[in-house]
Amino acid sequence: MREQGKLITLEGCEGVGKSTQIRMLQAYLDEAGCETLFVREPGSTSIGERIRALLIDPSHRDMHARCEALLYCAARAQMIESVVRPALRRGTIVVCDRFIDSTYAYQGIARNLGGEAIAALNRFACDDIAPDLTFFLDLPPEQGFRRKGGADVADRMEGEALAFHQDVYRGYCAAAEREPQRIVRIDASADAQSIHAQIVQCLRARGIVR
Amino acid sequence: MREQGKLITLEGCEGVGKSTQIRMLQAYLDEAGCETLFVREPGSTSIGERIRALLIDPSHRDMHARCEALLYCAARAQMIESVVRPALRRGTIVVCDRFIDSTYAYQGIARNLGGEAIAALNRFACDDIAPDLTFFLDLPPEQGFRRKGGADVADRMEGEALAFHQDVYRGYCAAAEREPQRIVRIDASADAQSIHAQIVQCLRARGIVR
Repeated sequence: MREQGKLITLEGCEGVGKSTQIRMLQAYLDEAGCETLFVREPGSTSIGERIRALLIDPSHRDMHARCEALLYCAARAQMIESVVRPALRRGTIVVCDRFIDSTYAYQGIARNLGGEAIAALNRFACDDIAPDLTFFLDLPPEQGFRRKGGADVADRMEGEALAFHQDVYRGYCAAAEREPQRIVRIDASADAQSIHAQIVQCLRARGIVR
Repeated sequence: MREQGKLITLEGCEGVGKSTQIRMLQAYLDEAGCETLFVREPGSTSIGERIRALLIDPSHRDMHARCEALLYCAARAQMIESVVRPALRRGTIVVCDRFIDSTYAYQGIARNLGGEAIAALNRFACDDIAPDLTFFLDLPPEQGFRRKGGADVADRMEGEALAFHQDVYRGYCAAAEREPQRIVRIDASADAQSIHAQIVQCLRARGIVR
């Protein structure tokens, strides 16, 4: 049975304003009377939140890239089966803060595991579920860092050097170029209200909201 | 550079006597003056032990099979890179209590994820490291259960029903049939001393110990 709902994901480097856009989108969809579910990766299940704690723990500096990729995918598989798939079956609009393109950009490109290997892991983790639409909030990391006032050193991933985040950015750009139909690139240097308006316009154009 | 040491794994259902054989093997190799490292899966690194705690937690009854497989492989990737590979480079004999064939039998066969999907995950987790020799302690689970005095309900995996462990057993048998060169099948209904003698004889025949 084809799931009735829609899976929408937001992607982009640290400090691009994903949280702000998610809050604005939530308010908009609530107002429009849509049934929604907002989730974040890694996490959104009790097992996933325990995996998240492991992943961001700054004492885990020696975590190997393949271990890291497998942990992100483990949290994803759990979230897909216990919350995303049931919600899509009910016809819900599911909005996810980071998803497969983050694993591609962070572990596939920035950690150098290779895009093909990560694509295969993502397929295993997601089974037959894929995003219907992805917004890539496009802002080079040097600008995102400035906006955020520097990296959060209490988070193992955010604490990586600028060069790492520049590789992540290259990864997102490559993903967006490969799948222009699914991944909508939005200039995230614009003000929050105009970014929100573009997101809403796109959701309407695709018939996801009226 | 080809690693100099040897990776030896012990596999089999619950209660087949793996721990006893590992203790006897450790005593034998110590006596023979071999440099050894004994590890267990999942675990053997601080990150791996945290993943192990997540996996065996009996409150995680809703853990999805794909999440479970990815967590085992995450712990494996970490163990490979932080302890196994460096030890093999030093010429150490590494003995691992459970390894890739457990993921094949438990998640691939008993959890029905498919042997091919699990083989691909195992390759990702292990990179270029593979067991040189595997001992499959062959005892049908109904006999292992009796020997152990029943399942340990405090362990999520051991607490599975007998039918599950029978599927696991079928998985091990299939792996052993597919790779008869690597996987040495030992009748585990024999007494511990005679099983140990067979293991030692095999290690000598393969030139792993003198």
